[in-house]
This record gives sequence, structure tokens and C-alpha cells, in this order.
Amino acid sequence: MSTSYGAAFALMRESASQAWRAYTRHAFVEGLKDGSLSREAFLHYLRQDYVFLIHFSRAWALAVVKSETHGEMRAAVATVNALVAEEMQLHIGICEAAGISQEDLFATTERAENLAYTRFVLEAGYSGDLLDLLAALAPCVMGYGEIGQRLASEASSQTYADWIGTYAGDDYQEACKAVGILLDNALERRLGKDFTTSPRWPRLCKTFETATELEVGFWQMGLTP
Amino acid sequence: MSTSYGAAFALMRESASQAWRAYTRHAFVEGLKDGSLSREAFLHYLRQDYVFLIHFSRAWALAVVKSETHGEMRAAVATVNALVAEEMQLHIGICEAAGISQEDLFATTERAENLAYTRFVLEAGYSGDLLDLLAALAPCVMGYGEIGQRLASEASSQTYADWIGTYAGDDYQEACKAVGILLDNALERRLGKDFTTSPRWPRLCKTFETATELEVGFWQMGLTP
Amino acid sequence: MSTSYGAAFALMRESASQAWRAYTRHAFVEGLKDGSLSREAFLHYLRQDYVFLIHFSRAWALAVVKSETHGEMRAAVATVNALVAEEMQLHIGICEAAGISQEDLFATTERAENLAYTRFVLEAGYSGDLLDLLAALAPCVMGYGEIGQRLASEASSQTYADWIGTYAGDDYQEACKAVGILLDNALERRLGKDFTTSPRWPRLCKTFETATELEVGFWQMGLTP
Amino acid sequence: MSTSYGAAFALMRESASQAWRAYTRHAFVEGLKDGSLSREAFLHYLRQDYVFLIHFSRAWALAVVKSETHGEMRAAVATVNALVAEEMQLHIGICEAAGISQEDLFATTERAENLAYTRFVLEAGYSGDLLDLLAALAPCVMGYGEIGQRLASEASSQTYADWIGTYAGDDYQEACKAVGILLDNALERRLGKDFTTSPRWPRLCKTFETATELEVGFWQMGLTP
Repeated sequence: MSTSYGAAFALMRESASQAWRAYTRHAFVEGLKDGSLSREAFLHYLRQDYVFLIHFSRAWALAVVKSETHGEMRAAVATVNALVAEEMQLHIGICEAAGISQEDLFATTERAENLAYTRFVLEAGYSGDLLDLLAALAPCVMGYGEIGQRLASEASSQTYADWIGTYAGDDYQEACKAVGILLDNALERRLGKDFTTSPRWPRLCKTFETATELEVGFWQMGLTP
Repeated sequence: MSTSYGAAFALMRESASQAWRAYTRHAFVEGLKDGSLSREAFLHYLRQDYVFLIHFSRAWALAVVKSETHGEMRAAVATVNALVAEEMQLHIGICEAAGISQEDLFATTERAENLAYTRFVLEAGYSGDLLDLLAALAPCVMGYGEIGQRLASEASSQTYADWIGTYAGDDYQEACKAVGILLDNALERRLGKDFTTSPRWPRLCKTFETATELEVGFWQMGLTP
Repeated sequence: MSTSYGAAFALMRESASQAWRAYTRHAFVEGLKDGSLSREAFLHYLRQDYVFLIHFSRAWALAVVKSETHGEMRAAVATVNALVAEEMQLHIGICEAAGISQEDLFATTERAENLAYTRFVLEAGYSGDLLDLLAALAPCVMGYGEIGQRLASEASSQTYADWIGTYAGDDYQEACKAVGILLDNALERRLGKDFTTSPRWPRLCKTFETATELEVGFWQMGLTP
Repeated sequence: MSTSYGAAFALMRESASQAWRAYTRHAFVEGLKDGSLSREAFLHYLRQDYVFLIHFSRAWALAVVKSETHGEMRAAVATVNALVAEEMQLHIGICEAAGISQEDLFATTERAENLAYTRFVLEAGYSGDLLDLLAALAPCVMGYGEIGQRLASEASSQTYADWIGTYAGDDYQEACKAVGILLDNALERRLGKDFTTSPRWPRLCKTFETATELEVGFWQMGLTP
């Protein structure tokens, strides 16, 4: 199913297949699927994810700065806007509904596993070009899309149906496709049509893999409030 | 009238009063006011301004990356979105109406006076924090606001009424006020309520002044197609 | 003893006293002191530390980029040069003497605890100004100086005498003092003589504390080859 | 003769041949050759060049941050060190000998043509990867090497023999060759052996050309104290 997120993503995902499986089939994810994940762990995850979103949005804003074409700028701006103007507000609402006040949410202490991930992404973007940044951003965007799709058809419990619905929903799936197109086009523009033959390709795949491993660490943190 | 754009801007403007006057009362501006500006110069300016907008939008996206609070992020994202999703599109439309095709517009060769300005702003932002960046961004935002307001009441010709109307209009004036609030709050957060007593204040005023001088250079370039 | 590394460091250290103790008195450090640290753990640490040094040197080079005065530039350049032209070479030699070939050393897989630390430092530097960067760099520089000094007088074993000697030695101690002066001067230049009254001070202390906690994580990683 | 500075430089130079000629054969350069350049213009140039060196050194430090290999790091660090620890000191000495006190030198007001150049280089480096940065750095490094070599054999006056000797000298020529090797290797690492077939190549040549044009602007500024 992942092929719908573009050619480059499909190849990167395959190159990091072991880490990708560990990420998208993590015990935390399976707990969302069958409803066995404790509420405490879920709320803990939500709070950390809010802090994550702040820095992830900053990283997407950096993608605007690193853009070289109108298309790249527009795609990155659309993502930043969706994250900051919508998703972060949505997150505050979800947390409030779950009993976490905005004040409480804002006071969340960032965990090391969380910090490691976002700083890795931001640094990859600052030190490299748009490709390095997109390779680090893709696992989170597309992984959640893939998890959402799978859980929408496999979930055996309604407990986390809202969460699943968000990522399985059309809006999110469209966003994944748009990022896939952005990634494919950005690669072609910088490395040519045969981008997998570029000496940069294995390093981009390595960045993708490291970000995927940091996703595994994030889920693991989610299990240990 | 500039006081409506916030306390810090009013002080920075005063500290750079000579350059500010040279910028906001430039012959190019007076030519817009009385309609004496040649159409050739205006179209040349529009084309260069489009290239300017690209890099200026990137600089505002960098302000999102450099934000430390939700308020800062939201304010900067709103500006990026207005610039990329609206103003750049608007600009393409204005140029097309003026006989400059999109293809032609995109092929504009960036002039040195243009490049100098945007790279100065971006570098100030990359090397410094949000304050350094905002001090470099403010002259363009607020200067156009001030020019728009003045010309709306003083213009003796209808030739450039559309241009004047854009910057005198409520949308743009509100944007200037929002940037003024962002600047005041960002200063208070980082340097305290008495921000003018901070050793950084004169350097921030110097950055503001340099950006203002680069605006003068931009108008001057506008007069020499 | 830490007061010899400057006024700001002494205050930051105090503000993060719990984390600082956990860092400078970590089981790994005590194992270096009494020789109980396994050779396997030490070699594992050396290899990770080599990867760390690469990114730490890059972060010090960023301090050159972010410098505003000649003094700041010269101090930062001296550190970069000492790290890249000397310490990294020294490290290769130490590893070779310990049986880790250069080829093997260069192939070290960066651990997440290692990556988290250096990316945090680099991102703090990229997103902020020189102060944010120095606050993130200080715990490593000065902590090793303090550990070296203490172990030089308290060590009950000769096993890790070379390592201890490096950081207790005059060259390293002088480097710590120079960084202390750089930090004090950089603070005074940007926040004034009463820099602890600036609203930025608690955030700089927080950055220092986070970096200190990441040092704890680094030692912990050292114990788990 | 320029081929001794590496394969990529020779190609970039050729792709920007018109701008390259305007730069390396500029009236300012010819005035250095036959001694007709006024002392006032030369001292004015020296002062601006000092400010230039500060930012150029920062840009080379950014090349350390953007390095991906030990070789890249070492080459960039050597350049930073030569610039900050030696050339900047040398410059202060030359200016003092010419009657410009250190205090006076440090108070030099940066001209727009100067600012435009260094901010362009720094921004290219911040926004891109090491290749974008090196393409922007190369014209200054190699152009001075080429001018020095030519004037050493063609000069008809001793007036500016010291200046010519510096850039014609072995130390400087070796530095040019080292940068040529760094550029060739960095290109091969990122774009492959056939780097000129990469879609990035024309954009890198364009960056090189823009930097060359900014050198022309710098000489022009030199003629107008």
C-alpha cells in the first residue's frame, strides 16, 4: 500500500525494512489496535507528541527555507500551516478532552527519546539541503499514514478509534501523498531521474533509517510513562 | 502614525530616522504618488519584487524555525502563509495583467541590489536569534505599510492606485500591527521589559538601519531598469 | 574548584546541581577512578566518543560562525583547531594503541544516546545565538575538566591514568579556562553585566542542564556496550 | 594556469568566463599591476577587505560544520585557521603600516557591495550543502591566486609588490590547490565522478558566477572610496 506515497518513499522504506517493521508494528501500535494500551501510556504519549509537534513543525518550516522552487515552497508551507494552525490546535483539544489542561500540556517535560528525534531531524535539515531534511521527515509522516490505514482495517477495539481515524482519514492520507510527490520531485530536481544511482542515495536512505529507529524509540518511550 | 505598529518599531524607526526618510520618501515612492514613475520602471520593479518575495517568504519561514513560543510560531506561520499562498499568487496575477507572463516573470534575473537585501536578512536570521531576524524583516513590512498609508491620502494620480491600495488596505495594515506585536513580545521575552537598556538593543537598531538602507538601494534599482 | 572556569559556569553548574552530580559522579567515572571499569566498556566508550568528537568539533565551528567579535572568533577557532587537528588525531592513536584500527573506528555505529547529545547541541546553536550554543557546549568541556582534576587526586588505580592525565593536564585545564572566559564575555556582551537578571538566563541554564543530562545518558551508554 | 586549482574550478571558471574576465582583469587589478591605483583607493579597499575577511572566515567555519568526512573537516579547519589566526592578523599589520590604526580599522563601515558578497556566500552555505558553499567560496580564493600569479609576472611597478607577493606566494598558491582538491572531492562524493552531468551542476556554476560578479562589484567599490 505504501507505493501510493511515491516512488522514493517505497524504496527508502524497503532499504530500512527491519527498522520500518519495528516501527510500524511496535507493541505500542498493536496496543492501539486491540485497545490493550493503557490509558496512562496513551496520555503520556499524547503529551510527548505535542512537544514533538512543535519541533516537527519547525522542521517543516525549515523545509520552506530550503526550498528552491515554487512547488517546493507551496508544498512545505501547506504542511507547516496544517501542523501549526490545525494539528497543534487539534492536539490541545484532544488532550483537554482527555483531562489534560492546556497549562498542564504546555508544562510537559520533553523526554530524551523525544528530543533525540526532533533535534536529529532539525540538524539534518540545517546541515544539509532539502533532500537530507525530507529523508528525515518522511518516516514520521508516512509511517503514521501507513499505521492509520492498517489499523483502520485491522483494529479489534474502538478504544483508540479516534486516533486511528485521524491518520486513516482522507485529509491525512492526501497529506502523505503530497509529501511523497514533494520528495520524488525534490530528488529528481537535485539528483536526476535515476536518483538511486547517485552517491547520495545510500546516505539519504541511512538518514531515513535513523529517523525510523528514532520512531521506534519514541513508541518505546510511550510505553514507559 | 507609525506608533500603531508597536513600541519597538517606533523606537527603531527613530534611531534610523535619516535612512528611514530616504527609504519612505524615495523618488520612486514620490513617483508612485504623483504618477510620474515610468511604466517601464514600475514593471521592472514588480519583477524584481517577485524575486524578493521568494526570499522574503523563506526568511519568514525561518522566523517559524526560530520561534520559542506558540504565539511566535502562529504569528510567523500566518505571515508565511499570507506571503506564499496569497501575495506571491497575487503578484503573478498583477504581472500578468501588466503583460508579464508567468514564464517571463520566473526568468527574471535577480539584481545585485535585490540579492544584497534578502541575503542580508536571511543571514541575520540564520546567524542570530529571532530578534536579529525580526529587526531585519521589520523595515520592509512596516515601511510599505507606512508608505501605503501616506500615499493613500496624498496621491495626486490614479496611475498606481492599485499598488497603493494594497498596502494602505486593512489586510496589510493589520499584518503590520501583528508584526509589531510579535516584535514587541519577542523583545520582552528575550531582553525584558526595558529592552532598550540591553546591550543588544543598539545592535538590533543597527540591523534595522542596514535593512532600511538596503530598501533605499532597492528603490534606486527600481529607477534603473 | 569549578570557579576557575568562570563566573557563569559556576552559576550554571549550581543551577543544575543534581544533574551535574549525576554526570560527574557517574558509575562510569567512578569505574575510571578505581579501575573497575571493564576494558570492553572503555573501548566501546572510546569509539562512541570519537563519533561524538566529530559532531562536537562541528558545533565548535558553528561557534566561529556565530561569533560577533574578534575575541570570540579567535577563542572558538582555537578550540576547533585543537579538536580537529589534535584531539581527533590523538583519539585515533589511543584507539589504535588499544587495538581498534582506524578503519574499525571510522565504521563505528553511532548510538542513539550519542546522537541525541550532539544533535541537541548543534540544533541549539543553529536555532539560537552564540549564548545558546555555548550553554550547550559548556557541560562537556568543563565537566571533563572537573572530572579530570578530581580523578587525578582521587584515583586508586593506574588503569585509566592516561585518560585522567589528559583531562587533568595543563593544556586541557587551560582550554576550560579559556572557554569560561569566552562564556562570561559573550554573556556580558549580549545580556549585560547583570546577565543573571535577563529573562534569557533561566533558559540558558535549562539548556546547560539538558546537555548535562545528555552527558549522564552518554556515560550510561558507555556501561552498556 | 588555473587548471592547477583542480578540475571543477577550471570548468566553473570557463562557464563564467565573461564575469571571470571582468573580475580578474578589472581596472582595480590593472591599477595594482602598473601602480596607477591611488593610495586612497588601496587603503579604502584594505579596510573593506578586512571586514570582508571576518565574514569570509565565518563562511569557511560553516564549511567545517557542513563537512561529512575527516578530509573535508581538516581541509576546512586549515583554511579557517589560516584566515583567522594568520591572515586577519597580517591584515591588521599591513593596515597599521599604512597608517590605519587598529581602532580605526575596526570602525570601518561595511559598504553595501561588501555586505552583498559575504551575505550571499553565507546564505548559500546555510541554505545548501557543502557544495553550494564551496561554489560560492571558490571565486575569491582562486581568483586572488590567479591574479597574484599573473601580476607577479606582468607587474610594471613595485608600488603594490607586497600585495602581489602575498597572493603569488607559495603559501597562498598551495592553499588554492588544497581548496581545488577539496572542491573536486566534495563534488565526487556527492554527485559522482561525472558530476557535470548532475542536474545540480549548472546551479553550482550559477552560484560560482554570481559570486564572481559580486567580486567585480567589490573591485568597483574599491575604486570609489
